[in-house]
Amino acid sequence: MSHQVAFIGLGNMGGPMAANLAGKGFAVTAFDLSEQALIRAAEAGCATSGDPHAAVVGADFVVTMLPSGPIVEAVMVAQGLLDSIPARALIIDCSTVSPDDSRRVAKAAGERGLRFIDAPVSGGTAAAAAGTLSFMCGGDGADVDRARPVLGAMGANVFHAGDHGAGSVAKICNNMLLAVHMIGTAEALQMGVNNGLDPRVLSDIMLKSSGCNWSLEKYNPYPGVMANVPASKGYEGGFMVNLMLKDLGLALETAKTSESAVPMGALAQSLYAMLKHSDRELGGKDFSSVLRLFQ
Amino acid sequence: MSHQVAFIGLGNMGGPMAANLAGKGFAVTAFDLSEQALIRAAEAGCATSGDPHAAVVGADFVVTMLPSGPIVEAVMVAQGLLDSIPARALIIDCSTVSPDDSRRVAKAAGERGLRFIDAPVSGGTAAAAAGTLSFMCGGDGADVDRARPVLGAMGANVFHAGDHGAGSVAKICNNMLLAVHMIGTAEALQMGVNNGLDPRVLSDIMLKSSGCNWSLEKYNPYPGVMANVPASKGYEGGFMVNLMLKDLGLALETAKTSESAVPMGALAQSLYAMLKHSDRELGGKDFSSVLRLFQ
Amino acid sequence: MSHQVAFIGLGNMGGPMAANLAGKGFAVTAFDLSEQALIRAAEAGCATSGDPHAAVVGADFVVTMLPSGPIVEAVMVAQGLLDSIPARALIIDCSTVSPDDSRRVAKAAGERGLRFIDAPVSGGTAAAAAGTLSFMCGGDGADVDRARPVLGAMGANVFHAGDHGAGSVAKICNNMLLAVHMIGTAEALQMGVNNGLDPRVLSDIMLKSSGCNWSLEKYNPYPGVMANVPASKGYEGGFMVNLMLKDLGLALETAKTSESAVPMGALAQSLYAMLKHSDRELGGKDFSSVLRLFQ
Amino acid sequence: MSHQVAFIGLGNMGGPMAANLAGKGFAVTAFDLSEQALIRAAEAGCATSGDPHAAVVGADFVVTMLPSGPIVEAVMVAQGLLDSIPARALIIDCSTVSPDDSRRVAKAAGERGLRFIDAPVSGGTAAAAAGTLSFMCGGDGADVDRARPVLGAMGANVFHAGDHGAGSVAKICNNMLLAVHMIGTAEALQMGVNNGLDPRVLSDIMLKSSGCNWSLEKYNPYPGVMANVPASKGYEGGFMVNLMLKDLGLALETAKTSESAVPMGALAQSLYAMLKHSDRELGGKDFSSVLRLFQ
Repeated sequence: MSHQVAFIGLGNMGGPMAANLAGKGFAVTAFDLSEQALIRAAEAGCATSGDPHAAVVGADFVVTMLPSGPIVEAVMVAQGLLDSIPARALIIDCSTVSPDDSRRVAKAAGERGLRFIDAPVSGGTAAAAAGTLSFMCGGDGADVDRARPVLGAMGANVFHAGDHGAGSVAKICNNMLLAVHMIGTAEALQMGVNNGLDPRVLSDIMLKSSGCNWSLEKYNPYPGVMANVPASKGYEGGFMVNLMLKDLGLALETAKTSESAVPMGALAQSLYAMLKHSDRELGGKDFSSVLRLFQ
Repeated sequence: MSHQVAFIGLGNMGGPMAANLAGKGFAVTAFDLSEQALIRAAEAGCATSGDPHAAVVGADFVVTMLPSGPIVEAVMVAQGLLDSIPARALIIDCSTVSPDDSRRVAKAAGERGLRFIDAPVSGGTAAAAAGTLSFMCGGDGADVDRARPVLGAMGANVFHAGDHGAGSVAKICNNMLLAVHMIGTAEALQMGVNNGLDPRVLSDIMLKSSGCNWSLEKYNPYPGVMANVPASKGYEGGFMVNLMLKDLGLALETAKTSESAVPMGALAQSLYAMLKHSDRELGGKDFSSVLRLFQ
Repeated sequence: MSHQVAFIGLGNMGGPMAANLAGKGFAVTAFDLSEQALIRAAEAGCATSGDPHAAVVGADFVVTMLPSGPIVEAVMVAQGLLDSIPARALIIDCSTVSPDDSRRVAKAAGERGLRFIDAPVSGGTAAAAAGTLSFMCGGDGADVDRARPVLGAMGANVFHAGDHGAGSVAKICNNMLLAVHMIGTAEALQMGVNNGLDPRVLSDIMLKSSGCNWSLEKYNPYPGVMANVPASKGYEGGFMVNLMLKDLGLALETAKTSESAVPMGALAQSLYAMLKHSDRELGGKDFSSVLRLFQ
Repeated sequence: MSHQVAFIGLGNMGGPMAANLAGKGFAVTAFDLSEQALIRAAEAGCATSGDPHAAVVGADFVVTMLPSGPIVEAVMVAQGLLDSIPARALIIDCSTVSPDDSRRVAKAAGERGLRFIDAPVSGGTAAAAAGTLSFMCGGDGADVDRARPVLGAMGANVFHAGDHGAGSVAKICNNMLLAVHMIGTAEALQMGVNNGLDPRVLSDIMLKSSGCNWSLEKYNPYPGVMANVPASKGYEGGFMVNLMLKDLGLALETAKTSESAVPMGALAQSLYAMLKHSDRELGGKDFSSVLRLFQ
């Protein structure tokens, strides 16, 4: 008998994640406010429901993939979904939220005798479709282990970062660092070009030197250096500036709360905010378009 | 018959580089102002000379490894070494200098009919001793090819970055990017720790995620995460704060000259200057000690 | 017959503010959790109460001066003080809180038919004692006018910034700008000194030139340039680093919420966080001690 | 008998400065490479010369106002003007140059027995025309005193900052601080507007509070807040972005040379470089247009 999974939130990420679960043999009941999203989920083999309270009936796992922490909290607490979830179910929140948000929902779940882990993802829509996401989990080790079959059906890596909220902390730290080396890479390449270097040659050199980083290796921001990256396709697709700006906002909030000094991370937030303001259309472009600030 | 190499400048980098050349069968005549350095060079199999003009007699290659661009220019032009170098010799300047400095010396050499390339290195004293340096070369392609046997005896990689000065540009861009991702890595790790994460676990997660970069992979700045890196040895050894500050100074100068915007690079220079000012002793510690600013 | 004022929160700021109100003839009933604070308030001519619900009975004005927005909200909503305040009273919140916090409390007050303005202050403990604070008010113009006699007894300036929350926005913008020019002033003075200038002479020049700003004019951060400022008294007294860091945290939160780009403000937050981390004792020193980062 | 002044460099600043000297009764012989500039100088009452060596014959004072330090050095040393200047003349260099440039020219002058002061100006073209410039002087006190009548004919303030180069240091520190508080003011005003405040109201509040600074008081960057400033005239006129970028380049160079930490100043250089790159036309607009980065 297969495991019952209730999947709440079928957007650009949640839709393909639920489809992968169904494709791997889980019995998925999917919920979203969008009729369109429900139709696509049904085509992918999910049962669907227009009511989240109905969707969680009989669930072994409840996976949530929602746009923000306040929305997760509203659905779970204010709208009372926690009161409908069966006692045996494990709640897996894959949304990108602040550590404090994670901890508050974990606490509310615990007060009702429910198990909860935060499990935000890294990898974007392409990895969601391919089932190669990374999950950064916070919560009890036994709960993370229990979630592994479910997460493994949607991704390639499952990390246990620590207690409740630690998954969110890890996600935020990683994406802050990603923003920093992406901007640093863009600065270095453009300064090289301004001084007469070919961006391909400079990229090759830095790839084999101490400047090497993920942005340079997988995601070169200079148009024409790598095929099949957003920079070579007018910065279409990929990971939107708006989403990076959201993640950097969570980084600033986390820095504020913990009185952490993140000068590079804070500058990154400012630069992405400037990028978005410089041309409203850029908010929907890939985050490697930050190179444009330096051209 | 082996090639004659005159080697000018036998410091922490130049000393082992000259020794490697001699060890690989080149006939090296070494010069330095320090008697001690000359004794060590002789022990490594170099002929030595207390006069640079005598050292270059009969040379096929003149390799310079000096502390700064103004010193290279003073030795070559003001002190007239260019007038002593034989017409057939190729000059290879491995010093870290500004692109403008490189171009001026290249021009002065060209006016005397001499060939010149800039070939600054990446890798530090350990790579100098092991003969695994990377060389970033600027100048004519034929000259770079002619230098390959010499450079190959001292290093593992030889890159041709472009025209005169391009080697210096590539070195400066690479080290600026290195500083940026080192600081970004330190910020991310410390913010994680401030929020209760284990720096080893967070490092593992980011290594397999989009935050991955050379600092995290080879040179983790958090004490105790990796063995055998400066962070786990009281920040001793490695690449000194003072030297990183010098390279970032060259980056600012290059940014100024080319009116490039390098917000992350400029912030890195300020942070390293603050680090040095916070405790004079730190200037001689490894550059991964920048983590201390955030603790 | 004099106006009845309930004063909630008798800390370093609230204590002298309540005393000034009593000294100017208002009938003040003061509340704080601290017995000591109540004794001092009684000595200054206030009636006192150990119960906030009792303190607001019969009040025409309820002034709150509490450590943070969540505390204001907890007192007003969760602990139900809004339900004890008489319908005719005007609530004046002088606490430094986020604009969203202000708006939420204003809304909760409005739902109970109560009038509310946010009125955070500028000027510090010295101005609180001297009765020369500035109040930045958000809310209805008629309510601000009604508050003027009360605020005028505690301060020298009353500004109407706009709707609910606008007082908090103005306070946050002002203090962010203060942090920026204080740090800029410290950088400029120290760079001058590093290049051989006398900080007094350089201060005089910039005071009469386009670099002029409040920090330079009233609050020179270089020891010995001005008498009677914290910099000349070991950075004792004045406006603590911890408080500036709190205000800059509110600035980051406001920037995040409104997707504003504040690169200088964000850098200021990082620098104050580094300052505090560099030496825990500095958190309690005056904010002009940021100069030490550059020495 | 009036003093003889040779004036070298009749650009946007030098032209009106020479005219003011002539108008105040000095016997001015003016030189520039531009025929147009010479015609205007003649109309203003100057004698003119197409040869700088001829222009300095018989001079009591030689005033230079040239575009950069290397140009000053080229004219004085390489082109040999120092060898033509009479022994009794005092050289007053009003150009904006690096402190090292000033010191090198001072040394070259001294070697020929000539007196020299650096005297860069603050105030822009409007102050040059009105004769209300500020001069920041470096050199011997007696020489500065001797220059006062000449400088007083062109400006309102004469400061003695210290030894040779100190005038340039003071100018650079002041303008760096100006850039910092201008950007800080723009950030604060825009964040206020993004949160619903009227920029006029917020400006009024901050003018009377601790955020007060020269940019806010004399040069508000938000369009429509002050009449007769560049922000209210499409950012036309005033102090060009290109010139601020040049001054910030000198600040970075000075920070590099003295290993000073200027995080705000370095960020300012990056932001002005980004501003210029965002729209080439902006290089010729007033520096208060930095607000556009945040809109």
